[in-house]
Amino acid sequence: MKPPVILARGKHTFLIEKFEGTLHTHDGIINLEELKNKRFGDEVETHLGVKYKILPYRAVDFFKHFKRSATPIMPKDIGAIIAYTGLSPDSLILDAGTGTGMIAAYMAYFNKYGEVVTVEKRKEFAKIARDNFKLAGLKNIHQVVGDVLFVAEGFKREFDLIILDMKDDVKFIPKAYEILNYGGHLVVYNPYIEATRAVYEKMIKVGFRNVESFEILKIDYEHKRVGTRPFTRVWHTGFLVMGRKI
Amino acid sequence: MKPPVILARGKHTFLIEKFEGTLHTHDGIINLEELKNKRFGDEVETHLGVKYKILPYRAVDFFKHFKRSATPIMPKDIGAIIAYTGLSPDSLILDAGTGTGMIAAYMAYFNKYGEVVTVEKRKEFAKIARDNFKLAGLKNIHQVVGDVLFVAEGFKREFDLIILDMKDDVKFIPKAYEILNYGGHLVVYNPYIEATRAVYEKMIKVGFRNVESFEILKIDYEHKRVGTRPFTRVWHTGFLVMGRKI
Amino acid sequence: MKPPVILARGKHTFLIEKFEGTLHTHDGIINLEELKNKRFGDEVETHLGVKYKILPYRAVDFFKHFKRSATPIMPKDIGAIIAYTGLSPDSLILDAGTGTGMIAAYMAYFNKYGEVVTVEKRKEFAKIARDNFKLAGLKNIHQVVGDVLFVAEGFKREFDLIILDMKDDVKFIPKAYEILNYGGHLVVYNPYIEATRAVYEKMIKVGFRNVESFEILKIDYEHKRVGTRPFTRVWHTGFLVMGRKI
Amino acid sequence: MKPPVILARGKHTFLIEKFEGTLHTHDGIINLEELKNKRFGDEVETHLGVKYKILPYRAVDFFKHFKRSATPIMPKDIGAIIAYTGLSPDSLILDAGTGTGMIAAYMAYFNKYGEVVTVEKRKEFAKIARDNFKLAGLKNIHQVVGDVLFVAEGFKREFDLIILDMKDDVKFIPKAYEILNYGGHLVVYNPYIEATRAVYEKMIKVGFRNVESFEILKIDYEHKRVGTRPFTRVWHTGFLVMGRKI
Repeated sequence: MKPPVILARGKHTFLIEKFEGTLHTHDGIINLEELKNKRFGDEVETHLGVKYKILPYRAVDFFKHFKRSATPIMPKDIGAIIAYTGLSPDSLILDAGTGTGMIAAYMAYFNKYGEVVTVEKRKEFAKIARDNFKLAGLKNIHQVVGDVLFVAEGFKREFDLIILDMKDDVKFIPKAYEILNYGGHLVVYNPYIEATRAVYEKMIKVGFRNVESFEILKIDYEHKRVGTRPFTRVWHTGFLVMGRKI
Repeated sequence: MKPPVILARGKHTFLIEKFEGTLHTHDGIINLEELKNKRFGDEVETHLGVKYKILPYRAVDFFKHFKRSATPIMPKDIGAIIAYTGLSPDSLILDAGTGTGMIAAYMAYFNKYGEVVTVEKRKEFAKIARDNFKLAGLKNIHQVVGDVLFVAEGFKREFDLIILDMKDDVKFIPKAYEILNYGGHLVVYNPYIEATRAVYEKMIKVGFRNVESFEILKIDYEHKRVGTRPFTRVWHTGFLVMGRKI
Repeated sequence: MKPPVILARGKHTFLIEKFEGTLHTHDGIINLEELKNKRFGDEVETHLGVKYKILPYRAVDFFKHFKRSATPIMPKDIGAIIAYTGLSPDSLILDAGTGTGMIAAYMAYFNKYGEVVTVEKRKEFAKIARDNFKLAGLKNIHQVVGDVLFVAEGFKREFDLIILDMKDDVKFIPKAYEILNYGGHLVVYNPYIEATRAVYEKMIKVGFRNVESFEILKIDYEHKRVGTRPFTRVWHTGFLVMGRKI
Repeated sequence: MKPPVILARGKHTFLIEKFEGTLHTHDGIINLEELKNKRFGDEVETHLGVKYKILPYRAVDFFKHFKRSATPIMPKDIGAIIAYTGLSPDSLILDAGTGTGMIAAYMAYFNKYGEVVTVEKRKEFAKIARDNFKLAGLKNIHQVVGDVLFVAEGFKREFDLIILDMKDDVKFIPKAYEILNYGGHLVVYNPYIEATRAVYEKMIKVGFRNVESFEILKIDYEHKRVGTRPFTRVWHTGFLVMGRKI
């Protein structure tokens, strides 16, 4: 077993990046050297005898701890981006409008053998996102602070997937087409219908094929003693427009 | 540029696995040697002067050509499995109930640096799936023909994700728990509510945590000259129950 | 038992308006005088011995036989109009944009002790609607052929409910406000989102209160031997915007 | 103008049943004699000079003030009952499981020229409902306190519509069939899927035709300066099963 691993007790989880030194928890101190001879599913004790379970590290588990600067995208939408664009996990992805960093983080996680370039013009947002990426231990994210409309001037045609979650999305569509590899996809995420239509029309005009607008809903079901019924925690988050450069 | 690549003209697509010999299309013959000096986005001509565009190969594009033995899962559901389980693309996945092979194929594609073991007891289904996997050029799928309730006797605790899309799903849940790594997920896909409840209750009983039932809907939007309106191509496909071994 | 009644056999139904003379069916001839001494649920025989069941007449059962000139509104939407406006069944209703006549027919039916004025500028549509109203035996509908923007010049403030299903809906909103009684509602039905927004904004501007936009969905469930699952026959039909004059 | 009328100021509304005496509001005293010479839309002043607008009385406006003993049905579901059963506003309706009284109240309102019999076995619920009916000024509701399984023994075949919102719904279905007129409908409202299925199967078995299970959803839309987007206040409330006696 090698780091990183997770130490978990109920809702409390710690990310352990090295098997050396000590970890101070509110349940006592754990000697991290002990982890070297353990396996996933084993437990390790604090000096007070409180047990923590050892689990493999998965970055996604940490995304719920992200500091939030804006309403972030949800896994239902991330899943649709991956499935409908056919993301290969060794792609080069451009994410414009870092925000909280949720899209970049998920993409870096699922695209583990590739790279993600994320661009944000608001410095304070970029800083929060940087802390979030560090928390999740993601190393394949490249952060750029600046306006993507200018920053992208220096980009070549090399991206497999471009995702926009930003105000000036329509303006950036021609450049996105230019720097996208043949066979690659552009995805635009937007909470409003009128903006979604503007994106759809611009993508058609610029030459994208198979352009589609949709939204993804997750309907939860609760199974109680008296019976089963649907409910929703969240209904609408945003619309997705996707198109392909062929 | 190296193989495999796609040659595309309108709706016609060919998967090219080697840059040697010739390809006979209904538009004429293409000399595949010519591909060696081309780039993605370039075109190649048949001896009749008809042009085909060269695109990078993506297995997912081929899934729509799969021969179907049963109603297959859809990308909206595949995306949810990936996003909510936090699939790392170097996992060991067990898929029980191969059917058309759609789940195994998607998983093999997104889990490119890992492996998928898929088990099907009906020989004729397994054969169709084998042809489908070959069509898509997927090499990290291991097919087993047999009843998973017996076959899995020989399996060790080594799977990161187990997906069930089969009749006897409830019966297999205890074994699934046993052979799943700590931190791993079980996902059960089922079109009916009563069966979904039975799965949910068994998963709770066997010790799974964070067990959740839900369904994913995709609402399409059409942007016509007269206005925008929602429509659906497909509404309900199946319910997903997910739980984690912690 | 008094007329009108329905004679039903499987899918074949006849509306009987008088208990005199004979009815020629493809199963033989029925002497309608015989109905005088029957009760609902009784049967009457043709001269060939084929039996028809006697049921009370309900106009709504006939709406499915309407000739259609455009995509008509559905009961789910009609029900919402009644329930959310609090329709009293002795109201004066204005229906602008007769179309197939479906809205006017449903409203005349549920507003049995009131009246419906329906206005349509396309003569051929008005004619189809007239035949439909006759088929359903509705007597409290007043048809006007003409452009409601002109026709309504002569209307006083006397309507309890106004429903618009027509192209120039936005233009008619100020006049609708004027001729609506205090406490009355305006409802606008429209399939497109952009048009719905324009209606919403105009209604706010003109002085309507409690203005709301929504759509009603009907999710069907099938209970099969293998289990229960949701499905939809129709997803989106149109949006409703409602507001009240207070 | 005749009573009853509503006096409204902002969110404050009063139901005025006679045009005599005085009304004490927190804005001062209104001499109700003055209402005799007013019209809807006119205003009347308190002795402190505060103005109240005179609106026609609509019982439905009062339903939101009902005291609640259980989660009540919503207008979206009431509308579907009316529209899909084809309720004529001079029907005899049986409502079993009075609860808060919401179904009985809505039905009495829309079925203004008919009667509603509502049965509840829990005395304290019946009392709350009685107060609610009084608040809304509904006179065509007949309340029975007792178990409908016994109470209905004395009922004849005379109901046009029967609505069940009660625990023992399945047990009452055979009796409901018996006391329903030919052409009439039974509607069962239930929040859970398993119970919905049991009702559906029993209704088929007992002889109902056109039996259908469904649920009605209301999707709200908000039109903000930045754009339009869907949201939901309430998602699932309950399922409806409907069938007809033919």
